Amino acid sequence: MAGSNLGTILKISTWGESHGKAVGVVIDGCPAGLSLCEEDIQVFLDRRKPGTSPYSTPRSESDTVQILSGVFEGATTGTPISLLVQNEDYKSEDYDEISSCYRPGHADYTYEAKYGIRDPRGGGRSSGRETVGRVAAGAVASKLLAEMGVSILTYAKSIGPVSVSDDEIDPDEITKNPLGMPSASAAKKAMEYLDACREKQDSCGGVVECVVTGLPAGIGEPVFDKLDADLAKAILSIGAVKGFEIGDGFTAAKSTGSKNNDAFLPDGEGRLIKETNHAGGTLGGISDGSPVLFRAAIKPTPSIGITQQTVDKNGQPTDIEITGRHDPVIVPRAIVVVEAMTALTLADLLLLNTSSRMDYLKKVYE
Amino acid sequence: MAGSNLGTILKISTWGESHGKAVGVVIDGCPAGLSLCEEDIQVFLDRRKPGTSPYSTPRSESDTVQILSGVFEGATTGTPISLLVQNEDYKSEDYDEISSCYRPGHADYTYEAKYGIRDPRGGGRSSGRETVGRVAAGAVASKLLAEMGVSILTYAKSIGPVSVSDDEIDPDEITKNPLGMPSASAAKKAMEYLDACREKQDSCGGVVECVVTGLPAGIGEPVFDKLDADLAKAILSIGAVKGFEIGDGFTAAKSTGSKNNDAFLPDGEGRLIKETNHAGGTLGGISDGSPVLFRAAIKPTPSIGITQQTVDKNGQPTDIEITGRHDPVIVPRAIVVVEAMTALTLADLLLLNTSSRMDYLKKVYE
Amino acid sequence: MAGSNLGTILKISTWGESHGKAVGVVIDGCPAGLSLCEEDIQVFLDRRKPGTSPYSTPRSESDTVQILSGVFEGATTGTPISLLVQNEDYKSEDYDEISSCYRPGHADYTYEAKYGIRDPRGGGRSSGRETVGRVAAGAVASKLLAEMGVSILTYAKSIGPVSVSDDEIDPDEITKNPLGMPSASAAKKAMEYLDACREKQDSCGGVVECVVTGLPAGIGEPVFDKLDADLAKAILSIGAVKGFEIGDGFTAAKSTGSKNNDAFLPDGEGRLIKETNHAGGTLGGISDGSPVLFRAAIKPTPSIGITQQTVDKNGQPTDIEITGRHDPVIVPRAIVVVEAMTALTLADLLLLNTSSRMDYLKKVYE
Amino acid sequence: MAGSNLGTILKISTWGESHGKAVGVVIDGCPAGLSLCEEDIQVFLDRRKPGTSPYSTPRSESDTVQILSGVFEGATTGTPISLLVQNEDYKSEDYDEISSCYRPGHADYTYEAKYGIRDPRGGGRSSGRETVGRVAAGAVASKLLAEMGVSILTYAKSIGPVSVSDDEIDPDEITKNPLGMPSASAAKKAMEYLDACREKQDSCGGVVECVVTGLPAGIGEPVFDKLDADLAKAILSIGAVKGFEIGDGFTAAKSTGSKNNDAFLPDGEGRLIKETNHAGGTLGGISDGSPVLFRAAIKPTPSIGITQQTVDKNGQPTDIEITGRHDPVIVPRAIVVVEAMTALTLADLLLLNTSSRMDYLKKVYE
Repeated sequence: MAGSNLGTILKISTWGESHGKAVGVVIDGCPAGLSLCEEDIQVFLDRRKPGTSPYSTPRSESDTVQILSGVFEGATTGTPISLLVQNEDYKSEDYDEISSCYRPGHADYTYEAKYGIRDPRGGGRSSGRETVGRVAAGAVASKLLAEMGVSILTYAKSIGPVSVSDDEIDPDEITKNPLGMPSASAAKKAMEYLDACREKQDSCGGVVECVVTGLPAGIGEPVFDKLDADLAKAILSIGAVKGFEIGDGFTAAKSTGSKNNDAFLPDGEGRLIKETNHAGGTLGGISDGSPVLFRAAIKPTPSIGITQQTVDKNGQPTDIEITGRHDPVIVPRAIVVVEAMTALTLADLLLLNTSSRMDYLKKVYE
Repeated sequence: MAGSNLGTILKISTWGESHGKAVGVVIDGCPAGLSLCEEDIQVFLDRRKPGTSPYSTPRSESDTVQILSGVFEGATTGTPISLLVQNEDYKSEDYDEISSCYRPGHADYTYEAKYGIRDPRGGGRSSGRETVGRVAAGAVASKLLAEMGVSILTYAKSIGPVSVSDDEIDPDEITKNPLGMPSASAAKKAMEYLDACREKQDSCGGVVECVVTGLPAGIGEPVFDKLDADLAKAILSIGAVKGFEIGDGFTAAKSTGSKNNDAFLPDGEGRLIKETNHAGGTLGGISDGSPVLFRAAIKPTPSIGITQQTVDKNGQPTDIEITGRHDPVIVPRAIVVVEAMTALTLADLLLLNTSSRMDYLKKVYE
Repeated sequence: MAGSNLGTILKISTWGESHGKAVGVVIDGCPAGLSLCEEDIQVFLDRRKPGTSPYSTPRSESDTVQILSGVFEGATTGTPISLLVQNEDYKSEDYDEISSCYRPGHADYTYEAKYGIRDPRGGGRSSGRETVGRVAAGAVASKLLAEMGVSILTYAKSIGPVSVSDDEIDPDEITKNPLGMPSASAAKKAMEYLDACREKQDSCGGVVECVVTGLPAGIGEPVFDKLDADLAKAILSIGAVKGFEIGDGFTAAKSTGSKNNDAFLPDGEGRLIKETNHAGGTLGGISDGSPVLFRAAIKPTPSIGITQQTVDKNGQPTDIEITGRHDPVIVPRAIVVVEAMTALTLADLLLLNTSSRMDYLKKVYE
Repeated sequence: MAGSNLGTILKISTWGESHGKAVGVVIDGCPAGLSLCEEDIQVFLDRRKPGTSPYSTPRSESDTVQILSGVFEGATTGTPISLLVQNEDYKSEDYDEISSCYRPGHADYTYEAKYGIRDPRGGGRSSGRETVGRVAAGAVASKLLAEMGVSILTYAKSIGPVSVSDDEIDPDEITKNPLGMPSASAAKKAMEYLDACREKQDSCGGVVECVVTGLPAGIGEPVFDKLDADLAKAILSIGAVKGFEIGDGFTAAKSTGSKNNDAFLPDGEGRLIKETNHAGGTLGGISDGSPVLFRAAIKPTPSIGITQQTVDKNGQPTDIEITGRHDPVIVPRAIVVVEAMTALTLADLLLLNTSSRMDYLKKVYE
């Protein structure tokens, strides 16, 4: 089946392996008339680029995007937008040692079980490099959302045991530290923890939080394509994500109705506001006009230098120490991937919603 | 858009409102030759039926399913299977009082924001009654999975503050208490907690856990249609679910690579087993042959008798006390819904995977 | 796979066998706020109902439609619309004789080759009764189109050797004869031809023509979901259709560029009109504002009384004479099916087009 | 909407404008283990390449394909296959003259009506150059079909008024003349006709016929995704196609049941053969094991030197003479496009069919 496609109206099709010639994405269904240039996409790609801090892999890629189609004189034309990024620094030799056995925590074994063959060069499509296409497409979706007044803020809520509490969050701090944490003091503690991790050749995980503002009420398609359901799928499709919760999430499971329900208040303009936002901006799978807030749990990077038990191609037990270039924590580079997947999901649902009411139809075709 | 459809090969289309004439589902793409009768579906519907314990709504519905098409002489024919359940005990008058204002924690407001109209009769499609179609379809998917050696065990991991620890789990207990908990002592405590809740006219939530065994390695479609991503969407599409985690989930975010990676061991038959299952049965979005294990966070029932603040149709502040027939906790009845959505997701991915390899094609067409 | 689903935004899922309990359709994605009642659908179903003239099967069905969901107080709510029609006059015994062999021109053999089983009761899903769901759904789509100023005229362009030339067409005649021909004299000749056919226990085919007016320019999604491509698929999906041509169609293949190109003229209001309409209302797969005109070739009814050669279940040669109740020509009853499929296709493309431009988005969300 | 995507299992996403940097396609869902190299694709692209005969445009493009992903050591890996062809000989200046008015028979006007903008460089996505992506993807599908024993023969049945009758067809002649006609004498006459056409600065159309052999019975998904319906859509999605007919097509509409029905005969091995093939290889939308035979009507090339009436950007009447590099007839280069679209459609349906029966499932997972 075709698992590299996403979206109903804003459809993306990503392609490319970690150690192939290039990676890229085709975006079909982007509305005509959206202002777009390569720089719009490049700023997103630069946020996921490796080698920018001691806490990410030293693999060196300029990750320069080319727009090959779909844009004319600075605006989208309504035709497919093809985006391509060359792979520059792939060293297949790095992977020779691992081609003979299955890395724990990686998808080597499951890809082989599925496809009956093995592409040992850096994990092929299961590599983090696959996310280049997501991020490039997400940049386009973000541009569209910005035009509609929607903005997305994404950051590291926690790294390993170091967490930022809700009242500590300072959005201005996010870009001031290499970890994307919204708190200078937390970032400092997290970096100390990461230094210790690396010394032990170990890795850690964390939690990414995302807050969407400006999304109008009414977005999301019940029953199965609920806003939260589509977000959950988009986020869980990111390689290292093991959990998703919206609003109070797992904490809500321990709460009571009287505490968890968000009271409605008049907003003075004939509409509603909610007194609290335990729900995380969605009721019945449809946006309620308050911020959409969710979190993604990211597992520790599976590539570690510590010796691990595994099995070789011949089914014999063996040991493995992974010595390639790897991120000690994936969270800082995952932030923009979460943001991109969020943008793609929201843009698609925003486009879908234009056909939900007869009065919308009449506005369009008046 | 069409949000009431799910699946790529095994497609379902559910329909029906809480207070309409009937609810149902059309299942298209079920393979021909699956043994199926109404009783197979009825046992699933009986598990979600209201009125079976003091902990569920006293609404009285026999929920008797009719197979209207797609089955001939006890087996599926490959054509669409239409399943219908009549609504019997709908009392629109119960809802008159709430038609004039928006219930906190419910989708009254968001449906109106989306569609520009209001169907006050029991929440329409946002009512839990919508899950009849899911459960009926899930019964068919479960039958298919059982034929392929896959089984699913689902239970209440926690209700409010009462949780069953992993080593307390006793599958035999699940059906022995009205809450679906795999522990007699936990169920007892939970019932005491629920009795107190109800006395206060309040409600609570909980966590449903699901364990799938017998699923072969290789199921799930990377990149976007990963096994865990599709499960997350299916589970988050259930009304009251606010979170999803697979394997160690949010706990993995605090772990380290050396602890979180599951070591591979030879199984003595030329294949692998994993020493642990922190991953929850999936690597790179593809099943790894070990049990698939995930949890869903369920919010407290929003319908409570306690007075709540809200806004009426005219934008004026008002109070509301919800006096209809409601479940004090949705978890026990949600168990079979989670199981149904799991079955539908797995069956679809199992069917999709048959076209993933040239050697499979040759086996089919030999 | 799920072949009984159609549409991207306006999705339909039809179900039901000729000799099962009922037939029906679920329509998902119909915009909220469309005025709709059972009578709107009944008038369409009455046009395809059997037994209304000597030229259609005497099978007696009232074909009364029930709306089971999706409509509240006379308008659509945005939720799935479930439509059901009971089967009344099915006589399985009629089919006993044919269950032991394969009818020429029918799908008995191919369904068995595909699904590995045989449902001999009237052809199951390959029966013309399957079109009840299409027509019911098409009635809803037609209502939506009418609201947007689009209307569809469909008629029998030819029956057997009797054809109506373009300048003979009189729309007022269509409903005045039982064959749906837009010419009284042609209808008379065709009826004489049909009487002769029936006397010989033979059957014949014909051509249905369809003209859509009021469709704005800009509808259709290049490259693959062109207006003409989607129409072709919709029309060829009707059981007996063997050909589709738009505008001059196969005649264009013999023409020259200078004759076949439609010159553009100013319409005096800053827009274009075409001097001619060889193209049939579409350029590059997108509607050009002129009438969309196409034809469907319908094969002779395969059920005939004349003795035919075939093979029985055991692979032995045998003869067959089909004595059941059958239409000597399917064209008159196919007219409304063609119209329904056209309406479904156009409505879906009209809805899709609302997300094609940034200025449309801004109109909807202003 | 996303109209540049096609397929359910074997999904393609084409991209690129006539006068952009490159054109290409991403193929997702190709089974792993299919032997594939660039040469396999190049032979198909060479068949549609311009400038190879006096009867095609002199635009000079090497049309060299690059495989950017999805293939490892000469075989597909199951991941997306990205194919790219650079545009070399685009001269935007050729199009300056036409950017100020709408070319009759072209999509200039409809693209502008749809998207609200105009990309005058060679028609953008409505140019024949868009078919590079189709043909490249079709080459992969053809390779897959060949592995399964299916082969496709495609040729020019007629060019302008010159037609090859069924009993004149000699497959060996097809590649011996620049028009792809299966008859040397017809090709000679057609070339004479074309020479006269060009002298008058006019153009002509023709009919492409396609014959598929080796397709097993049982392929095609009723009700809406019938083999013939999907083929019709695929073929009508090709720019210049105005009609599609399968088997006897429009001729069947004038026939009788007794003549048009294909009698069944035992094949001596417990299966059926058909005595004739009026149906064109499909019954009820499912392949019947006999050759699938259909025809596509291709309109005359709209770009002609003869003066035509049109309207300029300001809505004023004007004349146009098209002087760029154009094919006097599109049929010879359309042959491989028809073949590619056929291959893509059949491969997708062949893959879909692997999940249609429980016994197939058991074969795959045994």
